Amino acid sequence: MKGISLFIVPKFLVNADGSLGARNDVRCVSLEHKLGIHGSPTAVMSFGDNGGAVGYLVGEANKGLGYMFTMMNHARLGVGVEGMSVSERAYQKAVEYARDRVQSRAIGSPDPAGVAIIKHPDIRRMLMTMRSQIEAQRALAFYTAAALDRASRHPVASEAARNQALVNFLIPIVKGWNTEQANELTSLAVQVHGGMGFIEETGVAQYYRDARITAIYEGTTGIQALDLIGRKTFSEGGATARALLEEARATADKLAAAGYASMARNLQQAAAEAERCVAFILGSFGTQPKLAAAGSVPFLKLMGIVLGGWQLGRAALIAREKLGEDGVDEDFLKAKITTARFFAEHLLPQVGGLAAAIVDGADSVLELDDTLF
Amino acid sequence: MKGISLFIVPKFLVNADGSLGARNDVRCVSLEHKLGIHGSPTAVMSFGDNGGAVGYLVGEANKGLGYMFTMMNHARLGVGVEGMSVSERAYQKAVEYARDRVQSRAIGSPDPAGVAIIKHPDIRRMLMTMRSQIEAQRALAFYTAAALDRASRHPVASEAARNQALVNFLIPIVKGWNTEQANELTSLAVQVHGGMGFIEETGVAQYYRDARITAIYEGTTGIQALDLIGRKTFSEGGATARALLEEARATADKLAAAGYASMARNLQQAAAEAERCVAFILGSFGTQPKLAAAGSVPFLKLMGIVLGGWQLGRAALIAREKLGEDGVDEDFLKAKITTARFFAEHLLPQVGGLAAAIVDGADSVLELDDTLF
Repeated sequence: MKGISLFIVPKFLVNADGSLGARNDVRCVSLEHKLGIHGSPTAVMSFGDNGGAVGYLVGEANKGLGYMFTMMNHARLGVGVEGMSVSERAYQKAVEYARDRVQSRAIGSPDPAGVAIIKHPDIRRMLMTMRSQIEAQRALAFYTAAALDRASRHPVASEAARNQALVNFLIPIVKGWNTEQANELTSLAVQVHGGMGFIEETGVAQYYRDARITAIYEGTTGIQALDLIGRKTFSEGGATARALLEEARATADKLAAAGYASMARNLQQAAAEAERCVAFILGSFGTQPKLAAAGSVPFLKLMGIVLGGWQLGRAALIAREKLGEDGVDEDFLKAKITTARFFAEHLLPQVGGLAAAIVDGADSVLELDDTLF
Repeated sequence: MKGISLFIVPKFLVNADGSLGARNDVRCVSLEHKLGIHGSPTAVMSFGDNGGAVGYLVGEANKGLGYMFTMMNHARLGVGVEGMSVSERAYQKAVEYARDRVQSRAIGSPDPAGVAIIKHPDIRRMLMTMRSQIEAQRALAFYTAAALDRASRHPVASEAARNQALVNFLIPIVKGWNTEQANELTSLAVQVHGGMGFIEETGVAQYYRDARITAIYEGTTGIQALDLIGRKTFSEGGATARALLEEARATADKLAAAGYASMARNLQQAAAEAERCVAFILGSFGTQPKLAAAGSVPFLKLMGIVLGGWQLGRAALIAREKLGEDGVDEDFLKAKITTARFFAEHLLPQVGGLAAAIVDGADSVLELDDTLF
């Protein structure tokens, strides 16, 4: 049997009695200078320059790739949460700065006195863009984590299997969408700071630099997206994708009944566009995989937006219900509804443009000769 | 008369005979640590700590603000070109890397040998996303520069005035759109490099860091967008905006006649969405300026996309015409048409989502109480 084997190669060997032994023949020969995450050094390692390093086999020989993917699949969910978390910290810092920094009169006000920039509509738009996507990402990550628990512990085998399919489908979305958006959301946090955002002293530029690795490591967004359209959509005939979109439509119906017209309409339309894309992928991946692959990252983002909008729609309905109860935090619940509405009115409408690119735009991705770039 | 005056405060004074005099009482007390543009140090300056610095008045007293804006208006066009230029350099580097780097078999190919990543559809999508926007930005910047020349030199006063109005309208778009996209396009260049993009040694991370200032200095995108909806759209009753959109529609008609169906349809639809937004701004800015301001940056981006698509549509028509001529570079002309089609199929469809946010999304930008962020 041929395969990859996994070894641990420690800095020091271990003696038979468990005590620290000789220096192993493995050395760090340099540290990379990276854009960010300077707290996590990346090293060039040299093994066996002086006669050979000792390694300890992990598990069984030739099964290393499988072990690596056990780590990788968990790491992907973790990196998705990392992207969301750095966005959240950047959001908190941007809010703090926007409350503190006074600049320019309020638009349309006769009073010439400067106001805190959180009063300015475009600053609010940036903060709401951050806030609403972070809340959607957090909800989707929790939904995935709950499915992961049910997949491993549910007593009914069919329910465990259904949850495992959910986990498989959602992990590339949580990883890819959260991290792609981390680039955009930490950039908005820099923008809220204006010129101060470009100065490292404020700390917000660090979030922008740190976030940039999350869409790259443990599989780039392109790799997540290929996994999503191939093994997670085409190979199972779109079953999980369609089941999730049906749930989103059911939530849209409830939103309509609750009087949340824009949320209901935009979620319904977005789910319909997503279904159009699923049909396109099912129809193209088997025979013309390049056409499906050309729109794979836009499809991943589209699914992130639709499912994020669905999660916030669910949250808005729960918040509405709780608003009638005693002893609840009314401000929190109302903020939840406003945030869901912002997402529905600003993010969900992006789905139409993504769907058009996926379904009608593959040829122009592939057409140009390599030499003409 | 009260106003701001502009002074030059040199490091050394100048003697009456023109020779170098005494050290002036002005000192750099520290340099900021910035995210990027390390070739352009930003200093904390101290004036007059030891008895007073000597300054030389620029022009007339109290007219400094006007002088500053003469500089600023030119600088805005310049920074728009800077954003585009760093994107172009990042694109060149990404293309070079994508041709060189071999990774994974071609999708759908039975041959297991790895191929240069430029063969992979998602890498092509990223390169085309960069390329098409950079070409559109360059065309729009040149169009603006030509209008600037005609504004100052055209012998017919009405034509000079019409061109000045064009310049006034286009400068915030060239500045704001090119620089916002520079963040996204240099990020794509990092992404094409995968993990190597995060290592400073490749140089691509520097473009990502350097680009980040362009949407901030010489007026943030928010400031450009307020200028665009206020003085450049509302104050002139939308005349220039509508004249440009009418030209875009005429180009769309020509694209339809030339058989470029997707370019024609998507440009026509995008121009119609843009007109809907112009009407919204004209209807809201005078009485409820916060509603118009809430969508000001999305409107700036929308206009960048529509006018960029118009410019590439014009280019495609010229390329098509030239393709019949002797001695032309056919590859160049065909690449121009493919690039225009990519833009029409991938960028122009984004306009619908932006328009929805502008026209229907203002309330949810403004609703949340300051304390609840």
